[in-house]
Amino acid sequence: MTKTTPVSTIGERALIARLSKIFTTARSCSPEIILGAGADDCAVIDITDKDCLVVTTDMLHRRTDFPSRMSPWQIGWMAAAVNLSDIAAMGARPVGILSALGFPADTDVGLVEDIARGMDDCAKACGTTVIGGDIDTHDELTITGTAIGRVKKSELLTRCGAQAGDMVCVMGCVGSAGAALRALGDWKGTQVSDSILRALFEPVPHTTDAQELAGSGAVSSMMDTSDGLALSLHDLAGAGAVGFKVYEDALPIKDEVLAFAGSADKALDLALYTGGDFGLLFTVRPDMVEAARGACDLTVIGKVVGRDMGVTITRMNGTSLPIYRKGYLQLTNTVK
Amino acid sequence: MTKTTPVSTIGERALIARLSKIFTTARSCSPEIILGAGADDCAVIDITDKDCLVVTTDMLHRRTDFPSRMSPWQIGWMAAAVNLSDIAAMGARPVGILSALGFPADTDVGLVEDIARGMDDCAKACGTTVIGGDIDTHDELTITGTAIGRVKKSELLTRCGAQAGDMVCVMGCVGSAGAALRALGDWKGTQVSDSILRALFEPVPHTTDAQELAGSGAVSSMMDTSDGLALSLHDLAGAGAVGFKVYEDALPIKDEVLAFAGSADKALDLALYTGGDFGLLFTVRPDMVEAARGACDLTVIGKVVGRDMGVTITRMNGTSLPIYRKGYLQLTNTVK
Repeated sequence: MTKTTPVSTIGERALIARLSKIFTTARSCSPEIILGAGADDCAVIDITDKDCLVVTTDMLHRRTDFPSRMSPWQIGWMAAAVNLSDIAAMGARPVGILSALGFPADTDVGLVEDIARGMDDCAKACGTTVIGGDIDTHDELTITGTAIGRVKKSELLTRCGAQAGDMVCVMGCVGSAGAALRALGDWKGTQVSDSILRALFEPVPHTTDAQELAGSGAVSSMMDTSDGLALSLHDLAGAGAVGFKVYEDALPIKDEVLAFAGSADKALDLALYTGGDFGLLFTVRPDMVEAARGACDLTVIGKVVGRDMGVTITRMNGTSLPIYRKGYLQLTNTVK
Repeated sequence: MTKTTPVSTIGERALIARLSKIFTTARSCSPEIILGAGADDCAVIDITDKDCLVVTTDMLHRRTDFPSRMSPWQIGWMAAAVNLSDIAAMGARPVGILSALGFPADTDVGLVEDIARGMDDCAKACGTTVIGGDIDTHDELTITGTAIGRVKKSELLTRCGAQAGDMVCVMGCVGSAGAALRALGDWKGTQVSDSILRALFEPVPHTTDAQELAGSGAVSSMMDTSDGLALSLHDLAGAGAVGFKVYEDALPIKDEVLAFAGSADKALDLALYTGGDFGLLFTVRPDMVEAARGACDLTVIGKVVGRDMGVTITRMNGTSLPIYRKGYLQLTNTVK
């Protein structure tokens, strides 16, 4: 009998690494592929002397990806937002989104139309539109979105490029979506405001700000924070072969989230280890911070250090602790 | 109580039409969108003065889309092939494919790798590669592929353009995949050869031939026959606002499929009303048939007539019958 290895035992990142090895080294096969499978938020295709195209796809399911209180319109919005956030993370302007929808045969037509309206509204909010798709019957509601963007090669932002001395910045708040998820789940009975719930249910991709950042020339690397700040910090540090030193007192946590958490430790846990915020995490050349500020409303949360220094957080009391590589991971479907 | 309308009662094409209305008229929102949702096999994006990009997405599920005897490698091949066939149908050269994979958490890693190898091998056979994707846990194996292609605007082929007097042509055989499906299902106990089974399990997109056809300038409209010849004839005739007169004795049906069917009526039923062949259906200007023949090994199956004459087939005995608008349709998951 052949020994089997369930995917749940190796986890999402290890499986992606194994699959990426199978997919022919993209560049040798197609010289127009600038970045291929497994490398970044999007694949990158060379289309003209000056421009490239970025493409990304994300599959979402009713049970694992959409909190039960989400409306059909919010489900559609979210399915578009996760993809458009990846396009934004590359500094690109979205040019269209495709939507493959699977749902049970007895689903009400009106519900499917509400999902479509949510997708379309999110696409419009990002200056684009739904340009194609597919429908299919399926036991569980499943939505795969694919978004396409365009960016000047000179302005393309990837996860690689951070250098020691750069500043680590965040655009948007951290921990808000996580607080909403806790209020709906583990910490049931606690209340959060509609604005915090919307952070979870209706995340807004930072499409315009990301393009401004890309155009500023100040950014050395970028990604979104959808899997949580800690995991994103580790991914960005790993891609740049650097370390990050982050300061607790600099983290952009909403007052309501601080109050909801009830203690500094719990607030920090929300800020670092919960996902769903869809902010931008990026590094900025030290002499370009003002240029980056001119592009968007950013928060400097730390600085880039040598790889050997790892990814750490300096607490309010001055102690330094490692930030663990954990957050929302697929396959195991847990925060670990 | 609000009255609900299950999607199964209105069917795939009606639902696509309703969703397409919701998605903002693409062109008014993004002038670079040449063709948007619901219009053709692919959406079309303007990228340079001379070239455009075509994009398509397809969601497939274990139970409804993959016959139980398919191997994991064949499942991966099929998931790539359905998308690459849509790219071919526009006359485009594929530049990459993305793969979103959902599977149960206890799935063996080796099985997922075999699916990935199948996708990669099909992509390579079409001169391209898997450039990105997503993985997700899910009760039922689900694969959403998204393929991207590039074509000169002057060579882009769409479903619109057939004119009365054009010749109706097919590249590839009809009824082979349907015979294999029947042998595995309704007509269990009957045998088909490995080559017929491969027509169902390992469909080969006509990537090169389609580009040759596009380059010949002979073709006025084109699509693939994945949903069956009858449905494809109706779709192509509808898009061109024309009718088709097809001849039974011209249909490219393999001898083995004729023998398997056992009667002319049953063979015709297989040829018209079963899907999965992934051939190309196209119309050719009457004075350009030889040019088209120079591009690929085609079969002329009939001619384009006025819209009021509908879509008909002339039987061997000279009688003319309507071809019904039926084939494989999603939502109802039946041939009807």
